[in-house]
Amino acid sequence: MELYDSNRSAAAYRVRLALSCKGLSHRSIPLSLSKGGGEQLRPEYRVVNPQGTLPSLIDDDFTLTQSLAILEYLEETHPTPPLLPAGARQRARARQFAQIIVSDIQSLTNLRVLSYLRSMLRTPDVARALWYRHWLLEGLDALELWLTAESTGDFCVGNSVTIADVCLVPLLHSARRFALPLEDFPRLCEVEEICLVLPAFQQAHPDRHPEDI
Amino acid sequence: MELYDSNRSAAAYRVRLALSCKGLSHRSIPLSLSKGGGEQLRPEYRVVNPQGTLPSLIDDDFTLTQSLAILEYLEETHPTPPLLPAGARQRARARQFAQIIVSDIQSLTNLRVLSYLRSMLRTPDVARALWYRHWLLEGLDALELWLTAESTGDFCVGNSVTIADVCLVPLLHSARRFALPLEDFPRLCEVEEICLVLPAFQQAHPDRHPEDI
Repeated sequence: MELYDSNRSAAAYRVRLALSCKGLSHRSIPLSLSKGGGEQLRPEYRVVNPQGTLPSLIDDDFTLTQSLAILEYLEETHPTPPLLPAGARQRARARQFAQIIVSDIQSLTNLRVLSYLRSMLRTPDVARALWYRHWLLEGLDALELWLTAESTGDFCVGNSVTIADVCLVPLLHSARRFALPLEDFPRLCEVEEICLVLPAFQQAHPDRHPEDI
Repeated sequence: MELYDSNRSAAAYRVRLALSCKGLSHRSIPLSLSKGGGEQLRPEYRVVNPQGTLPSLIDDDFTLTQSLAILEYLEETHPTPPLLPAGARQRARARQFAQIIVSDIQSLTNLRVLSYLRSMLRTPDVARALWYRHWLLEGLDALELWLTAESTGDFCVGNSVTIADVCLVPLLHSARRFALPLEDFPRLCEVEEICLVLPAFQQAHPDRHPEDI
């Protein structure tokens, strides 16, 4: 498998984590999100993914985008070790948690949205920072409350890694890059700490991947 | 089952469609998104869903939010008729299409985001309209291209209704409410037209549900 990747993309980080947790090797094709306005917007990459978003996974002759769709695809094609728990309700919980991160937080705080606020709406820097903090903090509040109410194990859902953890770790990495203080989210940080010592998580960490310039 | 619902919420419309396609009856609990700043933000509803978002599905003693997590849950608990195609690749396609709608379009154009732009960033009306149009048109372009390249049947993926159609129809309904011209998206409109004549889609249509004031 090949992965169009960037160490600045939380969505790509999710997919690296899933591949790594499942012990699947892949060839990484890193794109720079900053060089020349973003290599992901160049015509060469639009052939792979017309939307110009990261990541794209290529499995043989099949190209797939959208990180959560990729996680479900990997789960169906390589079910062991699983990244979804047993039981419909626990599976629903893991998907709910992942979806809050992807739809309600990171879709609002990613580079393409911040760029649009700057270039098209001419939103000043301070307002963009406010925007970023607002959605991140509102989302982290919801997730912390969720974990406190729902979680009984070491990870977000139960005692093994699921797609919820695979989405949480890149989210907190982004929050830290933005220097957002995380002391109000002790349960989230606890799960993150447990995840980050796992070899599969270390292998997928952005620090291990080529730096965007 | 009970559904906290609104005829102004595209996410709730998705879940009504899924319930209806699967022939599952439910009790609707309509909330007004406008009355008193939005009933979904009141403490009474925060007990059900601390995030204050719609929809929430209550299945016996289990409460679930996030429309795509709910669709997957209904698929696992009531697999017939299916809303995911057979085969990992086709299933991945349906999820990819749905995820583009949920994460890349509607998460950026929903009421809570538009309200934040207005009240906190003090974005003028014309810039908010620009914002809305931008994400909607960019997303519709991607979906139209996707359908043209990928679809071979009457529906988004193949010849029966999937979660892709269940997400597309509410998206186009929102676009029409905003009076966005849709003539550049003939394939999307073709699939919509085929869907809208189905009894399951007619039953779930917002016009059949209490109007928000």
